[in-house]
Amino acid sequence: MARLLPQIHSPADLQRLSDEELQELAYEIRQELIKVLTTRPAHFASNLGVVELCLALHLTFDFSKDRLIWDTGHQIYPHKLITGRYDRFHTIRTKGGLMGFPNPAESPYDLFMTGHAGCSVSCISGLKAADDHLGHKDRKAVAVIGDGALPSGIVFEAFNNIGGMGQDVLVILNDNKMSICPRTGGLARYLDQCRMTEFYQGSKRRLNQFLHAIPVLGPMAQSALEQLRDGVKAMLKHGMLFEELGFRYFGPVDGHDLPGLRKILRDLKTQKGPILLHVFTVKGYGVEQAAADPVTYHAPPVFEKLDPQSGRVVAFKKGGGKTYTDAVSAAIYAAMQRDPHVVVLTAAMCQGNKLEKIREQFPDRFYDVGICESHAVAFAAGLAKGGLKPIVDIYSTFLQRAFDQIFQEVCLQNLPVVFCMDRAGLSGPDGPTHHGAFDIPYLRLFPNMTLMAPGDEADVQPMLDFALQHNGPIALRYPKANLERVERDGPPPPIEWGKAEVIRWGSDGCFVAYGALLSQCVAAARRLRDYGLDIGVINARFAKPLDKDLLLRVVETVPLVITVEEGTLEGGFGSALLEAANAAGLDTRNIVRAGLPDRFIEHGERGELLADCGLSVEHLVALVRARHCDLGRDDPCLLAQH
Amino acid sequence: MARLLPQIHSPADLQRLSDEELQELAYEIRQELIKVLTTRPAHFASNLGVVELCLALHLTFDFSKDRLIWDTGHQIYPHKLITGRYDRFHTIRTKGGLMGFPNPAESPYDLFMTGHAGCSVSCISGLKAADDHLGHKDRKAVAVIGDGALPSGIVFEAFNNIGGMGQDVLVILNDNKMSICPRTGGLARYLDQCRMTEFYQGSKRRLNQFLHAIPVLGPMAQSALEQLRDGVKAMLKHGMLFEELGFRYFGPVDGHDLPGLRKILRDLKTQKGPILLHVFTVKGYGVEQAAADPVTYHAPPVFEKLDPQSGRVVAFKKGGGKTYTDAVSAAIYAAMQRDPHVVVLTAAMCQGNKLEKIREQFPDRFYDVGICESHAVAFAAGLAKGGLKPIVDIYSTFLQRAFDQIFQEVCLQNLPVVFCMDRAGLSGPDGPTHHGAFDIPYLRLFPNMTLMAPGDEADVQPMLDFALQHNGPIALRYPKANLERVERDGPPPPIEWGKAEVIRWGSDGCFVAYGALLSQCVAAARRLRDYGLDIGVINARFAKPLDKDLLLRVVETVPLVITVEEGTLEGGFGSALLEAANAAGLDTRNIVRAGLPDRFIEHGERGELLADCGLSVEHLVALVRARHCDLGRDDPCLLAQH
Repeated sequence: MARLLPQIHSPADLQRLSDEELQELAYEIRQELIKVLTTRPAHFASNLGVVELCLALHLTFDFSKDRLIWDTGHQIYPHKLITGRYDRFHTIRTKGGLMGFPNPAESPYDLFMTGHAGCSVSCISGLKAADDHLGHKDRKAVAVIGDGALPSGIVFEAFNNIGGMGQDVLVILNDNKMSICPRTGGLARYLDQCRMTEFYQGSKRRLNQFLHAIPVLGPMAQSALEQLRDGVKAMLKHGMLFEELGFRYFGPVDGHDLPGLRKILRDLKTQKGPILLHVFTVKGYGVEQAAADPVTYHAPPVFEKLDPQSGRVVAFKKGGGKTYTDAVSAAIYAAMQRDPHVVVLTAAMCQGNKLEKIREQFPDRFYDVGICESHAVAFAAGLAKGGLKPIVDIYSTFLQRAFDQIFQEVCLQNLPVVFCMDRAGLSGPDGPTHHGAFDIPYLRLFPNMTLMAPGDEADVQPMLDFALQHNGPIALRYPKANLERVERDGPPPPIEWGKAEVIRWGSDGCFVAYGALLSQCVAAARRLRDYGLDIGVINARFAKPLDKDLLLRVVETVPLVITVEEGTLEGGFGSALLEAANAAGLDTRNIVRAGLPDRFIEHGERGELLADCGLSVEHLVALVRARHCDLGRDDPCLLAQH
Repeated sequence: MARLLPQIHSPADLQRLSDEELQELAYEIRQELIKVLTTRPAHFASNLGVVELCLALHLTFDFSKDRLIWDTGHQIYPHKLITGRYDRFHTIRTKGGLMGFPNPAESPYDLFMTGHAGCSVSCISGLKAADDHLGHKDRKAVAVIGDGALPSGIVFEAFNNIGGMGQDVLVILNDNKMSICPRTGGLARYLDQCRMTEFYQGSKRRLNQFLHAIPVLGPMAQSALEQLRDGVKAMLKHGMLFEELGFRYFGPVDGHDLPGLRKILRDLKTQKGPILLHVFTVKGYGVEQAAADPVTYHAPPVFEKLDPQSGRVVAFKKGGGKTYTDAVSAAIYAAMQRDPHVVVLTAAMCQGNKLEKIREQFPDRFYDVGICESHAVAFAAGLAKGGLKPIVDIYSTFLQRAFDQIFQEVCLQNLPVVFCMDRAGLSGPDGPTHHGAFDIPYLRLFPNMTLMAPGDEADVQPMLDFALQHNGPIALRYPKANLERVERDGPPPPIEWGKAEVIRWGSDGCFVAYGALLSQCVAAARRLRDYGLDIGVINARFAKPLDKDLLLRVVETVPLVITVEEGTLEGGFGSALLEAANAAGLDTRNIVRAGLPDRFIEHGERGELLADCGLSVEHLVALVRARHCDLGRDDPCLLAQH
């Protein structure tokens, strides 16, 4: 049972704890993290790693006026626990409960929702500039950024600008050597050098050899030699990369040594100019298994059993069946076995997208570029231009970071790049930064683009294969959800460019589902039969180009057409149908669009959120029934027969 | 008259020229550039600066198989002149003529349309990976990137990944110390250091002092000392920033010394691994005035008079009247005089957006972040969070590069950031990379966002003022066009959130213009009166939220509603009206949407391109007349009366 944690109502309460009590508090915080993980999946290892850093920061600064941004925000749990949210901590990542990321609506200590990596340095720079402008020069500005987020281009842009301005900004590099997946790239190697470092060690050895080789010198030469040695050491010191952008580099320091951290932070607090403090932490620190396997323990499944003494996980809860991610991964794997031209890219989502097997089997055709989505897409464009068949496998929401590269490098050049957009739609407990709510309209507006969404499991592999033989940009979107397979009268027809699939006809109306809500539509249609309503279901398959032949015929002949999509209604699939019907001169009053409303959707289970947005089976049934009553004002109301 | 240039049909023809002839060719290329500039605006100074570099590259490599990308592509003119396009060079930047950027449709020597900066390094990396995969390891890969493009985050992402992979890629940093506007940031300072460099010079001096201070040494110590000196020099050498990402750095070298360039390129051609060659060029080299004032001569107005002997510009053609850019700049200036909370950000568009006066008058409230749009927007979010009123003044097309920051840092946090989107719509001779065709739908899909477009000059200042007092994300878009002012019966009504302005009512139909095509609509309505058609005009002002009260009443009561927007029709303003009318249960068959088609629009004068897209006054008149004949099948056809 936590003894100290319940008494920490705000960071000010930390000040009266002794060093021993602070160590005890760190232990209690870790126990709290473990407790949550016995109830639901959450970000785990990264939070275990920042407990001491979080305490040291709040002990040194006063973030009721000073500024602190965590990047990414999934390392925010200890911060939440000591900023007045201990009581509600058990609700984290549940609907209506605490968000798993910083949330300004929860606490003034949370400044930005930082679900997408790398923007903290820019934001803290802006905040600092505003504070300085408005006479709050005394307010300190601190950003904590993970080494996984560091390679994001925007971080470099921010360093460059802060360095140029010479702002009083402290950036803490929380270096745990991980970027969800193990990190890659030249920068990673560079950070390892700072850690180790052969480079430094080797040079030091050579310098010492030289110094011993010099015979006795006169005092003047001695002094000059000292100077030189200092100069050489300065040159050899770590952090040149940051220094050259205008930052002063400090560290590396041990991120689990609380007194050490407090000391250096106290020193740095009074320094001027841009400062980078390099802190080494162990992802998963304090839980042996998590530290040993931080990839699995980044956001692990729920612990079925936990040894209360050792804190060791005895078993994870069984996974809940095969997902769209599994099916896409398998389809990619099969395609790669068949065709040596197929290559796969991801951006630190190797685990999330279940690409580990591909990484191992096809190491020379697999690219994890780190959290560098812009580069991933432009790099893919180069691969495609060179004659390969690249698949960019990135979550829908993170692909937003490559919007301009999709425009210029891919669509404008009309290059055959395949985008697999995982987590399209409501991603669940991660919340608004992670929902893939916007990709239908934001990709639909680009010329040359083809957009697909599998209606169910049966579509997945055929669509991926279709995408790979398509000669132009093409994307498929699918949710973070278990696979379903809808009933059909026969085998599904093959994928044809811009062709929808009729699941069943109905004389009273028709669902036109774009994507995996197809199964909800089939279920709703089945239930509506009980109300005497004969509702058809179409699996749209393509949002661009639309199957105008079929869909406009449906609009013309069926009394009620309900478009269903797990994406924003603003410019989405339903709007595409409205546009096409309008251009064809059709009356569109029988079209009803169901999708995500024009607001940011909170976190919660996907099913809960779908219901909130009117996309559950029950809501779809009610929608059709209500509209049929409306129609019934002119026509015989079918519902009246019941 | 050019003597040699007409004989260069492909780069292979360069090989038979002597060194003297190559110098002569460089002169002829510059004369050709000057000649174009006497006929139309074009990118000038940057092209003058890369003549020797371009020749040296084509003399050293064979880009019929080797790979070359220019970034940005506005320095492509010399390349075009020697890759078989001399004959058509006079057509550059005219409709149907050569594009002012690389264009794969023109020549196999052009690989990517690089209008947006910074993606070349990622693309060349992808190309190289594909070539290696497909058995073309001998193909060399070269990207030329300007120092203006260098700070773009994606470049850093690419360096990091190339460094990590150890690819055989040659990146040439074309350093002319300019980023359209003078460059800023820590990196700029760093590059200056490489150039000069106090750092290097000072260290060298200290080293020499030390060496002189050491008395006579034994031979062993002498040798060790030599080693140390080499070590120190290696440490002091330039390019550590790139070296630390895994690149080997060479240079800086003089970019106008053709034999010197050829020699180092020949050397580097056989080297393995990632290489950065730092080349110094003078933007405007060869034309004294351009070299002295590279900002003005980046893309200067047309030369009215040119001294044929000296090549000196005697006079520019007079500018063509006040533009939307002028009006927005003036409105921002006025707001900054009034309110010390207003700050302005741009991304190397100080000149394009006419912000020089603001930069000079309010240096502490003006931020040019360089070509770092993502940072600009996240930085602005920080400024807004801190209590300031930031205006992000960036071209519509380049703001695409901050799509994800608009999502997460601004809209999700609901922060009051004002976006001024210049060049929204068809930007003219720069072509498809520069048209602002997509911002209406790509911003409309974000919750919390407000979208405005001034209908004419009268709207500009009130809209900017409105934006500054609005408490949430808000954007205004306007074209690269001269200001117009439409006739109204009285003074225009004040700007109200989500309220449109009725210019005039008409019983036969109504234009609903979103943005500056309002004047075309007013002109079209006037002409349609001659055909007996009474057509109203509405200045929509807002695309989000729509003025549903007014516009849905129009849809209900007016027989023909034509939405007019200078943006793509896919999910644009017209679609927003379709959505609203559909949600309200209205028949939308009387709505016709005019806007940009679903294809990339080529380069040309804005007027030419608008006509191509059916957005000229003539086309709008014809559209209404044709539709009225259609309507006439049921109703008395008004045109029949004529």
